[in-house]
Amino acid sequence: MQLIDEPTRVLDDLAAGILWTYPQLARVPNTRGFYWPQHDEQLVPLIGGGGSGHDPAHWGYVGRGMLAAAVMGEMFVPPTADDIVAVTRVVAKQHRVFFIVKNFVADVTSFTVAKTRLEAAGYEVGMTIVADDISVEGPALATRKRGVAGTILVHKVLGAAAAAGASVPALTALAQQLAPCIKTIGFSLAGAVVPGQEAPSFTLPPHSVAYGVGIHGEPGYRTEPFQSAELLARELITKLRQAFRWQAGEQYAVLVNSLGGTTVMENLVFNRDVRELLALQPITVAFNHVGNFMSANGMHGLSLTLMRLADPAWLTALQAPVAVPAW
Amino acid sequence: MQLIDEPTRVLDDLAAGILWTYPQLARVPNTRGFYWPQHDEQLVPLIGGGGSGHDPAHWGYVGRGMLAAAVMGEMFVPPTADDIVAVTRVVAKQHRVFFIVKNFVADVTSFTVAKTRLEAAGYEVGMTIVADDISVEGPALATRKRGVAGTILVHKVLGAAAAAGASVPALTALAQQLAPCIKTIGFSLAGAVVPGQEAPSFTLPPHSVAYGVGIHGEPGYRTEPFQSAELLARELITKLRQAFRWQAGEQYAVLVNSLGGTTVMENLVFNRDVRELLALQPITVAFNHVGNFMSANGMHGLSLTLMRLADPAWLTALQAPVAVPAW
Repeated sequence: MQLIDEPTRVLDDLAAGILWTYPQLARVPNTRGFYWPQHDEQLVPLIGGGGSGHDPAHWGYVGRGMLAAAVMGEMFVPPTADDIVAVTRVVAKQHRVFFIVKNFVADVTSFTVAKTRLEAAGYEVGMTIVADDISVEGPALATRKRGVAGTILVHKVLGAAAAAGASVPALTALAQQLAPCIKTIGFSLAGAVVPGQEAPSFTLPPHSVAYGVGIHGEPGYRTEPFQSAELLARELITKLRQAFRWQAGEQYAVLVNSLGGTTVMENLVFNRDVRELLALQPITVAFNHVGNFMSANGMHGLSLTLMRLADPAWLTALQAPVAVPAW
Repeated sequence: MQLIDEPTRVLDDLAAGILWTYPQLARVPNTRGFYWPQHDEQLVPLIGGGGSGHDPAHWGYVGRGMLAAAVMGEMFVPPTADDIVAVTRVVAKQHRVFFIVKNFVADVTSFTVAKTRLEAAGYEVGMTIVADDISVEGPALATRKRGVAGTILVHKVLGAAAAAGASVPALTALAQQLAPCIKTIGFSLAGAVVPGQEAPSFTLPPHSVAYGVGIHGEPGYRTEPFQSAELLARELITKLRQAFRWQAGEQYAVLVNSLGGTTVMENLVFNRDVRELLALQPITVAFNHVGNFMSANGMHGLSLTLMRLADPAWLTALQAPVAVPAW
């Protein structure tokens, strides 16, 4: 049972709730796009987006130091190219913009079409496609590498660069450097629920955990009996270590992201397990952030993102103060 | 099923998680107390506390501009007087301290005993007992008026005063002024769960809502079928209007607090309903904060706190920037 009003208008009610709660944001008419009217026109605006239902993504990252705007579509459905163009026209007064897109076919299609149309209209458009999820392996599955919570770190690092005046080519180059350095893997103890639907997206046997589930409640790569948070942390770190092949002395940032249905206590116990296990590795953790950043509409699960801090400036960027609802 | 390790050591794991995640905090040995070592000794330290299981209360309010320390007990059990004395001795270098206590018999007992012992040792000790819950009515039930999410606003307003150099008598006077101006009422769609126990604290028929439930999962004053978030908002506002007997032109702050098991979408839809309904009242809302501030360990419910801004300085205090994990 969900604590909402009419399921058919829940995204409109959410939009109204966002504006009541964060009056520094404004809505782009006839879209599910939000922008920050105080954004400095001299800076390249960053725009993120994707399906609704990942609250506080992506509207929660609009404001000083991160995104100039975010545009959502329907529940778990990305915005249309029309929506993206409309939002861009509002914030890109200098006809320059940079898109941060998660690697799902429909998302990439919408943003690519919008980019093409905006370029035809004379805009300079940069774009990065975040594909941080490592729960599927092998070159044949590269297109299935989804963009998940690591996207928030891309918002943060590119946001710091944009706030410092980076050009579209500079943002593009930075995003290319970041791409291989951010990897995420998650798990869930239950499926995700869509407003108005009582049945979850998948079901698990009692006391089970599914590794590698997606932020839309896609089933994961393996299901097994749940034993402890520590064993989950161990599994995820093993996968991440294999993916990074890390070297002694490297610095990392750690992001523990709730999929929306965990408690603060659970998040912190899991982060404790992660940090205790990473303390046994020959790397150092220079940054650690724990919270509800990109959810699967209340799914009882977590994801773990590691970011290799290949450039010391990235750590400074992660630490830079911002004024947004959800960092 | 809870995402933890051994239930018997969950509070120790939580404490370790807090320190890994917020290295600016420190733990007082042999207690579940946390303090901020950078606290200016010239300022009166505020100490909050209560049972564990209300994360991010109370450790989440330790830092610049709010509490100097917070001390928790076992799950849903307040700290002992010994714990409170030990934490006070660490932060009250000038032998002055101010306690913010929630109105539960065991909490008040522990803090009162600690106060008496500290005063005997030469400390100047102020104390306020927050009793913002209005779900029980009538003078005979005054002792059952619990301290709930309004406590966070007391932390914030007293925190601003303490940061500005207020004395213990000045903090006491301010707390007395605040007391009648902060009122809270909540509801839940399910009982609360204690780590290591599978059964919730109470059960509801399917698709039901219980009004007036407490932060320890105490059953509420009425249970009825759930219809919509808007009807819940209407019920709570009616109760709050009756309690405040508000006058046209008064200013209020609004705090929507998740009991830990709601999604960001649910919180914002509910806040939308609250704000739309309050817009029909002859009062103005000058401050609105929505989030997970004082939970009942993941209970699927919310509380609504209104604070009458009788003094314009209180609004300034609510808006003042702070550096704590959970404001």
